[in-house]
Amino acid sequence: MEPPEQRPIRTDRALPSLEQRRRLVAVAAGRAPADVRLRGAAVLDPFTGAVRQADVLICDRWIAAVVPRGDVAPEDVAPGDVQRPPPLADVTLDGGLLSPGLIDGHMHLESSLVTPARYAQAVLPRGVTGVVCDPHEVANVAGVAGVRWLLARAAGLPFDVFATVPSCVPSTELETPGARLDVEEIEGLLSEPGIVGLAELMSFPAVVAGEPSSHAKVRAAELRNGTVEGHAPGLRGAALQAYLSAGVVSDHEATTLEEGREKLRSGMFLFVREGSVAKDAAALAALVNEGRGGRVGFCTDDQLPHDLMRLGGVDHAVRTAVRAGADPAEALIAATWSVARHYRLPRRGAVAPGYLADLAWWRGDLGEVAAGRVWKEGLEVARDGRMVADVAGVARTAGPTASVSDAVLLDSVRIGEDLEAQLAATLRWRDDAPVGSPVPVVGVLAASLLTKARSAVPRVVDGALASDPERDLALLTCSERHGRVERSAAALVHGFGLVRGALACSVGHDHHNLMAVGAEPGSIATALRRVAALGGGMVAVAEGEVLAELALPLGGLLTDAPLSEVVAGLDRLDEAAASLGVTLPSPLMALSFLGLAVIPELKLTDHGLVEVAAGRVVPVPWGPAGGA
Amino acid sequence: MEPPEQRPIRTDRALPSLEQRRRLVAVAAGRAPADVRLRGAAVLDPFTGAVRQADVLICDRWIAAVVPRGDVAPEDVAPGDVQRPPPLADVTLDGGLLSPGLIDGHMHLESSLVTPARYAQAVLPRGVTGVVCDPHEVANVAGVAGVRWLLARAAGLPFDVFATVPSCVPSTELETPGARLDVEEIEGLLSEPGIVGLAELMSFPAVVAGEPSSHAKVRAAELRNGTVEGHAPGLRGAALQAYLSAGVVSDHEATTLEEGREKLRSGMFLFVREGSVAKDAAALAALVNEGRGGRVGFCTDDQLPHDLMRLGGVDHAVRTAVRAGADPAEALIAATWSVARHYRLPRRGAVAPGYLADLAWWRGDLGEVAAGRVWKEGLEVARDGRMVADVAGVARTAGPTASVSDAVLLDSVRIGEDLEAQLAATLRWRDDAPVGSPVPVVGVLAASLLTKARSAVPRVVDGALASDPERDLALLTCSERHGRVERSAAALVHGFGLVRGALACSVGHDHHNLMAVGAEPGSIATALRRVAALGGGMVAVAEGEVLAELALPLGGLLTDAPLSEVVAGLDRLDEAAASLGVTLPSPLMALSFLGLAVIPELKLTDHGLVEVAAGRVVPVPWGPAGGA
Repeated sequence: MEPPEQRPIRTDRALPSLEQRRRLVAVAAGRAPADVRLRGAAVLDPFTGAVRQADVLICDRWIAAVVPRGDVAPEDVAPGDVQRPPPLADVTLDGGLLSPGLIDGHMHLESSLVTPARYAQAVLPRGVTGVVCDPHEVANVAGVAGVRWLLARAAGLPFDVFATVPSCVPSTELETPGARLDVEEIEGLLSEPGIVGLAELMSFPAVVAGEPSSHAKVRAAELRNGTVEGHAPGLRGAALQAYLSAGVVSDHEATTLEEGREKLRSGMFLFVREGSVAKDAAALAALVNEGRGGRVGFCTDDQLPHDLMRLGGVDHAVRTAVRAGADPAEALIAATWSVARHYRLPRRGAVAPGYLADLAWWRGDLGEVAAGRVWKEGLEVARDGRMVADVAGVARTAGPTASVSDAVLLDSVRIGEDLEAQLAATLRWRDDAPVGSPVPVVGVLAASLLTKARSAVPRVVDGALASDPERDLALLTCSERHGRVERSAAALVHGFGLVRGALACSVGHDHHNLMAVGAEPGSIATALRRVAALGGGMVAVAEGEVLAELALPLGGLLTDAPLSEVVAGLDRLDEAAASLGVTLPSPLMALSFLGLAVIPELKLTDHGLVEVAAGRVVPVPWGPAGGA
Repeated sequence: MEPPEQRPIRTDRALPSLEQRRRLVAVAAGRAPADVRLRGAAVLDPFTGAVRQADVLICDRWIAAVVPRGDVAPEDVAPGDVQRPPPLADVTLDGGLLSPGLIDGHMHLESSLVTPARYAQAVLPRGVTGVVCDPHEVANVAGVAGVRWLLARAAGLPFDVFATVPSCVPSTELETPGARLDVEEIEGLLSEPGIVGLAELMSFPAVVAGEPSSHAKVRAAELRNGTVEGHAPGLRGAALQAYLSAGVVSDHEATTLEEGREKLRSGMFLFVREGSVAKDAAALAALVNEGRGGRVGFCTDDQLPHDLMRLGGVDHAVRTAVRAGADPAEALIAATWSVARHYRLPRRGAVAPGYLADLAWWRGDLGEVAAGRVWKEGLEVARDGRMVADVAGVARTAGPTASVSDAVLLDSVRIGEDLEAQLAATLRWRDDAPVGSPVPVVGVLAASLLTKARSAVPRVVDGALASDPERDLALLTCSERHGRVERSAAALVHGFGLVRGALACSVGHDHHNLMAVGAEPGSIATALRRVAALGGGMVAVAEGEVLAELALPLGGLLTDAPLSEVVAGLDRLDEAAASLGVTLPSPLMALSFLGLAVIPELKLTDHGLVEVAAGRVVPVPWGPAGGA
């Protein structure tokens, strides 16, 4: 039996100090006045599923008591009620319903392109008071330090950011990340405050096949009492049983009721997902009513900037399910209580004595799931869709996580001095390769992570692979940018519509090397250099000029700018792309997924053109001998 | 912010090694044969509340897969099913229902008077595969070492013993325990394997009043992710809100539906209790159906030897509730899944892939809740009400807990050399005290922990307090036996019917000093000396002879003897007591509660006669000046 390993105690701010406990109990018992009393609304109770009229008494950052209103049925008024002193502040709500703030049970903060503070500003007014994220983007760029940085940025916000430890960095061995998270790194992170377990085990085939390192990661999480999150699209039958037997406890990939029900009854906690990339809430709405008050939650997974601004966060998942028939009270319970219990988030998930005063007041028709007022730990942070608390200015709490400097994520884009020569070598047609045969072409699909494996006979100009705008064939490149190896890879891509210039970005899931699509190698080089000069971001160039750009200087993934600026920047990039002939919607976003070597059929990493299903780099007649 | 504290990792045997995981996944996926296949029964699923026909495939100590039977409705047969190799062993069950083994959610092992191995032998055939105990008896006698001893004795048994850290040792400051568990001791224990949190905070008035040390104990448990168990009989309204605001998460003391429902909706996890001392399962049966599949569990609290042998363990609580109208499936879910989730017991509480193969097969009419066959971690341990595995011979697993020697609990009864003189001093009528006035008398009630405060004019013979059999007034004594202070206290007791001789025992809740009731001081001394010579136990003596005895040499609380011998011993003691004129049923048991200074109205500790409600020692006209 191995020696017990040490795990730091959760120093979660949800746990009151001794003095805070003394005050809290005094207020609850009626000996001291509440700081705030909320009255006039109904209160949702996840323990019985009921909704009842009650006053909520808040002391400091916690709920001290939930007191049934005097005008309720006698059997609801308990013996032992006392005459309470008037509260220091009284808030009268005009009907409506109080629930805990919503918790997004699985999401990637980096998909929003903004920092935790900006994300919080976007979703707090929607009634979302916390997220559990899988920070595998920052982990791919900056490893363990990146994860710590993200949590440090979140510390002190009136918003909860919990994280799972990314389990698949890199996501394949056919790409070069900025860092690796192997079992040792994972073990180290699992013990840190704010970490709740192991992130989605996307490599479910490896888990089912018994691959040792994935099982070692699971064991590390279980030994430290962490969750083991799953990701198993379409996994059914015996393979699903195997995935569960490994210790995986959840999934968010179900798209049909049948699949969801099999997963539920087999023992998975199910997140109903609604985000920019996957929209399953309407199809799975019935599951919300089948979770027995604890087995179903909600998540967004990836919420891109436009959707975040227009639709919100996980509130939109709840709203979508309710519109499709989920019971509103059960949906709110799923989005709060069930998620908090699944992750064992202390003192969260109910409007009940002792819980954090994280509250959302839902106005009028609950089917709209529209938050009127929102409190985080007793502080009113939003009202009528707007922030009323200063998120950006909230002082950071002292502690180990607050000392992680931005330096770990700045200047993260390193390209070689002679980029043009590197690209030329990448595009150079091999001497021994005949011209005139078809080669693989990446076929981009609108609004999809999937690509089709196409083929075409390429134009070869001056001994180099060339674009062919008339056939909608552009050059696609991926250039390593973490400073670990100087290399690029190239391919032809169909579907952008690009006829001149280039687009480039430093967001290139999951390895986040530089992705570019262009008509001319020169434009590609210009675009890549501009991305590097920005410290990361997205650019559109033509004829040596930058037409539009969005700086993402934090890891080449994120910016401190407000969400509205990011959306405006993306809009300008889309317009610029359109001026280059691009017809594909959201081309920069599409470009950022063309290196995602876990989603079929054909993707491009710095290693080369990857046939995803076969898990191999395809030999091509251009580039350095033997491939990248 | 205080520095994070360290907590050893849970090295629970529920977590497979890497090699075990490899095998488990292979069996689940259908690549390798199961060790055992159970087929023919229905399987209970706590995730959806359904019961469905399925085969259960076991690999090593875990369930690898739960495979719907071929003859079920097509929608239940999942895509992705495989042709599985035949299992190494096939077990055919004749209908019936498979559930996980039951888990007693709150109990005191010491009430059974037997060791964990003997307790396991008694309840495994009933379908009970685990308990969560509050070992405050051994803690009162031997402190932290006592708790570790109990867990060490349980290690290696095919039976789960988890423990909470006793929170109230001593239970009052008006008694002398063998050890104290203050915040430091509690913090130390909270980090140890097998410990799930803080035990029932019986001092709920102190918690509600904001008393600092109780809140410090709660905080210590929360910091270490442990549960905070409650004990709040009759607590309602504002005081209940205060108790919950302190962080307490459960209760087992509800006796009415109304009280139970208020506690449930206020946020408490509710244990429905049925044991020797409290019988609430019938009254609370309806709550089992209201727990939304997760908020209600079952427990026994105290199960005395006769009941343990005749009725069983927590299975009897389930049976009682079902007979009173609880849905059988919901009751089994409450007794397994809900308890396992409440305490976060890893890989326990469901018949599902990855869970320990702790299984109970319920025959025929589920309302009888009669276990036909029982498995613990894949090993069949019981069949048709009998053990079929050797519990006593199971090798202990290596590890820290296995090295706690019995020495910490042997020779735990220390009495002074001159016991007779000590007793004489205790009974000596004070020179300045008038004779002829009434004095307080402890009024024993049959089958109750309560006593009535009576009074009577005592017989004083030869300057000493004396018994008066004609008025059913016997001498009651409490003698410190932990070796911390040489002292006894005495009082008159009414209700035993004892006319000659004496009874004595080393079980004296909660401080476990020596309790005796007798007609003559000489008989009392004889009885106490015999208890000490046994190393602890219960005796009946008359005329200098031991009429009957039951040795409890482990801490003066427990014996390694089989349960049947203990029951026989108690029966002989009861007969012997009857021969002494005793009319009170179970007089030794009643005697063992007469020092319980937290239950009204009047109790006797080594400090003296305690008026429980007032929380003070009553001055009496006998004994050393100024009281004990």
